[in-house]
Amino acid sequence: MEMTLTQLLSAVALIAPDLDAKIVRDSGLTVGQFSSLEQATSGDIAFLANPKYVSQVQQTKATAVVLNEAVWLNHLDTCNAPGVILTNNPYAFFAFASQALVATKQQELYPHALQHSLAIHPSAVIHATAKIGARASIGPFTVIEAEATIEDDCQIGAHCTIGAGVSIGKGTQLYSSTTVYYGSQIGSNCIIHSGTVIGSDGFGFAPYQKRWIKIPQTGIVRIGDDVEIGSNCAIDRGALGDTVIGRGTKLDNLIQIAHNVLIGEDCAFAANIAIAGSAIVGNRVQMGGKAGVLGHLSVCDDVIISSCTLVTKTISKPGFYTGVYPIQENAEWEKNAVSLKRLNTLREQVKALEKQIKLG
Amino acid sequence: MEMTLTQLLSAVALIAPDLDAKIVRDSGLTVGQFSSLEQATSGDIAFLANPKYVSQVQQTKATAVVLNEAVWLNHLDTCNAPGVILTNNPYAFFAFASQALVATKQQELYPHALQHSLAIHPSAVIHATAKIGARASIGPFTVIEAEATIEDDCQIGAHCTIGAGVSIGKGTQLYSSTTVYYGSQIGSNCIIHSGTVIGSDGFGFAPYQKRWIKIPQTGIVRIGDDVEIGSNCAIDRGALGDTVIGRGTKLDNLIQIAHNVLIGEDCAFAANIAIAGSAIVGNRVQMGGKAGVLGHLSVCDDVIISSCTLVTKTISKPGFYTGVYPIQENAEWEKNAVSLKRLNTLREQVKALEKQIKLG
Amino acid sequence: MEMTLTQLLSAVALIAPDLDAKIVRDSGLTVGQFSSLEQATSGDIAFLANPKYVSQVQQTKATAVVLNEAVWLNHLDTCNAPGVILTNNPYAFFAFASQALVATKQQELYPHALQHSLAIHPSAVIHATAKIGARASIGPFTVIEAEATIEDDCQIGAHCTIGAGVSIGKGTQLYSSTTVYYGSQIGSNCIIHSGTVIGSDGFGFAPYQKRWIKIPQTGIVRIGDDVEIGSNCAIDRGALGDTVIGRGTKLDNLIQIAHNVLIGEDCAFAANIAIAGSAIVGNRVQMGGKAGVLGHLSVCDDVIISSCTLVTKTISKPGFYTGVYPIQENAEWEKNAVSLKRLNTLREQVKALEKQIKLG
Repeated sequence: MEMTLTQLLSAVALIAPDLDAKIVRDSGLTVGQFSSLEQATSGDIAFLANPKYVSQVQQTKATAVVLNEAVWLNHLDTCNAPGVILTNNPYAFFAFASQALVATKQQELYPHALQHSLAIHPSAVIHATAKIGARASIGPFTVIEAEATIEDDCQIGAHCTIGAGVSIGKGTQLYSSTTVYYGSQIGSNCIIHSGTVIGSDGFGFAPYQKRWIKIPQTGIVRIGDDVEIGSNCAIDRGALGDTVIGRGTKLDNLIQIAHNVLIGEDCAFAANIAIAGSAIVGNRVQMGGKAGVLGHLSVCDDVIISSCTLVTKTISKPGFYTGVYPIQENAEWEKNAVSLKRLNTLREQVKALEKQIKLG
Repeated sequence: MEMTLTQLLSAVALIAPDLDAKIVRDSGLTVGQFSSLEQATSGDIAFLANPKYVSQVQQTKATAVVLNEAVWLNHLDTCNAPGVILTNNPYAFFAFASQALVATKQQELYPHALQHSLAIHPSAVIHATAKIGARASIGPFTVIEAEATIEDDCQIGAHCTIGAGVSIGKGTQLYSSTTVYYGSQIGSNCIIHSGTVIGSDGFGFAPYQKRWIKIPQTGIVRIGDDVEIGSNCAIDRGALGDTVIGRGTKLDNLIQIAHNVLIGEDCAFAANIAIAGSAIVGNRVQMGGKAGVLGHLSVCDDVIISSCTLVTKTISKPGFYTGVYPIQENAEWEKNAVSLKRLNTLREQVKALEKQIKLG
Repeated sequence: MEMTLTQLLSAVALIAPDLDAKIVRDSGLTVGQFSSLEQATSGDIAFLANPKYVSQVQQTKATAVVLNEAVWLNHLDTCNAPGVILTNNPYAFFAFASQALVATKQQELYPHALQHSLAIHPSAVIHATAKIGARASIGPFTVIEAEATIEDDCQIGAHCTIGAGVSIGKGTQLYSSTTVYYGSQIGSNCIIHSGTVIGSDGFGFAPYQKRWIKIPQTGIVRIGDDVEIGSNCAIDRGALGDTVIGRGTKLDNLIQIAHNVLIGEDCAFAANIAIAGSAIVGNRVQMGGKAGVLGHLSVCDDVIISSCTLVTKTISKPGFYTGVYPIQENAEWEKNAVSLKRLNTLREQVKALEKQIKLG
């Protein structure tokens, strides 16, 4: 559905009443979707978050643009777009406004698409003791086991397995082929993507007579509200206690969260991260792709970890940490890597030289 | 179900007749589950494996504790718990005893939970030529193709696909949404977690006219008895020969085992490990999360590889090997990483200095 | 089915008319499968690609061998195999000939195996507006949503979910439990292995009031012809634009392709690779397992990246690049890693020494 700028601002105000945004130029034309400044055509709305692309504001064919108020208030003459919205946070405005536009867009694109999902599909196998809330949809072939609770407005895709005693909060969406093992608790308004497994056994074995004896994993997984988890992740249940993911935390794809890990609120973890058993991660921690945390360590609030960096000791000071081998042409790398394997010897040679020169 | 200490010891003796354990204090009270020394309350049993937590033995509210006989035999007066078990291996005792307690616990928690799983669900699609053993359970919507054999007491979850000619040994459990490609052989008493794919094509392509020509992967996957594989792993079938995982080996989540890899017995691999094609890994090898082994290399028995370490040459001596970039504050890392890219030059400078001083 | 060498050459010529290959010795015996030179027995055909194994040509029990023409034309007397094929590309010949042999082999092994797959299984849930091409097979419990198009000769396995508006080109095969989100476009003759998720949301969030606001991912995934994707991969849909994988590119298992990544043609990526958002990868790029590319970077055509190497800056020169920490015995590693954390200081010490000596 196309919206006028006034309608769009009202829609954003409903979701984010505190976000300051105003229309400073309005042609009355409607917009239907966001696009980049460069690719936008008539009917599109675009935004500028990165000052590097200022020139694109002058050239864009977008019907409306969203700009930073502090920067643009006195330079609106350099922007020719028929519609202009000023805000102190164009990127957040884009996120909220895009949510409003997309909600209607998908229905337009595939008018028949929601038929499967707006009800409980007759093929689903739902145990008599499971509770399904109002307006919840359950996809074809989904299995919901005993005493599970699916609250109101949940959307559970096709081929999901929801184990015994699982609870899923209001408005949470599970895409198809998601597996939730027995007893797991998922909050409200979460999004879990396909192939993700929640609550499988943690990796716990005791050595005995040179073999590995399985330690039953008797804890559960508890996931807070507003959590999003990408595709093909693995979130293990706890051994004795629980594995916990705090409210508002976002996980990308193919992420491993081991047993008894505690993750705080509003974290953002990029793809392929692994957090080993019993590690504790604070609030607002951001980690790049392929990063890792060793078991039983802590990472305090407000830490940023670079991609491919392994946290090998507890971090108790907020900051930006890195540990990744620099890339080079292979021939260069070979020479330097050989030297690295004797770096300590080199250091001792330098010490000896310093001593000799002092004595000399 | 609650058990007296005597009942618990009998249950452990059934599973591990060689494990030395005795009750040295008994209140007659029953225990229902393991808990940590710190969090235990009445009705719980706890154990001490790490000497660091000795003080918790004095303060625990557990009904019974499991302690190391060599350490505690003469210090039982410092422990107030109403029940005490002494053993030479508290951690293994915990594993076995927990297995005994949990077997009954799950049924208590979700009395209806096993209804789905104690039979062949009528929705399963089972080929007429497949053989299903006695007491095997097959979950809803599982597909079992031609000439597959599921032996006695197997538990196959919902949404599994078991390919043509697959064999699965006695008592093996596949959690829901596991996929086993045609011809794969899985041993007895294995556990395979959700989302894991066994027997998909190895990554084999021949270059021809600047394109990649697929090499059919005609081998299979053979998995020994007592193997556990976590969630969302990928175990590829062999190209000409087979891919093999030895008896008793345990794999965590999101692990990649490439075609024609041979893994020995009783190994333990943490999450996100990748073993490249045709690598050979011995017995009792332990690898930390995100470790890797390059193709066609060998790793001998009794090797430990640290997390995030890439094995780039054959290892023929048992031991502990590491290769991971140390983490630092990003500003420090930047300076050191720049220096690392010229490390070989630095080494030559030092050599030149040494020569000059000798001459001087 | 067994083939004579003449039949095999005809079969290869049908697939690869340009591949130069001729029979220079023929016993008239048939061959049924490829095997390694070492393990081959009567009825097998083997090939030599690696000169290291020349002696195996003399000892092989294979019924026929495939050899490099340039090397062997004048040395055929040292090879006793009853059949010999010469070609300028034995490895490619092996790939093509193996394809011809395997097509018939699988049917022999499991004569009942194809019954499930040669039709649309009655349990599949197919929306009335979806279009299914001629000779397409749809496995049990697969869900095909509104307005999806499955072209002729596609093979869709069990438990797949094909979203609204998805298009899948002629002859493409999806193994069981593959998920394709709405709107994705997959080319012809592709192979997608089990558990892979195509078109899930990219990882896009705007920071607002210390929380993360979801940015709707409105682009799609577009996959070219002849692409193969392994098991349990995650290919995210674009944010505003699309995520693209070029014709002929091959991805191994557990690979992450983030939103708006553009990958060229004929690339080969080993397992566990992650390409971060908006990265651009050229044609014929090869990456080892666990490699990664940071977001918004470019990698030009004909680049090779080693395993475990992170691309941290744009690469605009074809070549071979590496950045991986060398493995050592842990005790050695510890000393060198400590020194590495002060490497810049060491470099300054050496500079100071050089200065002192010049002055001295």
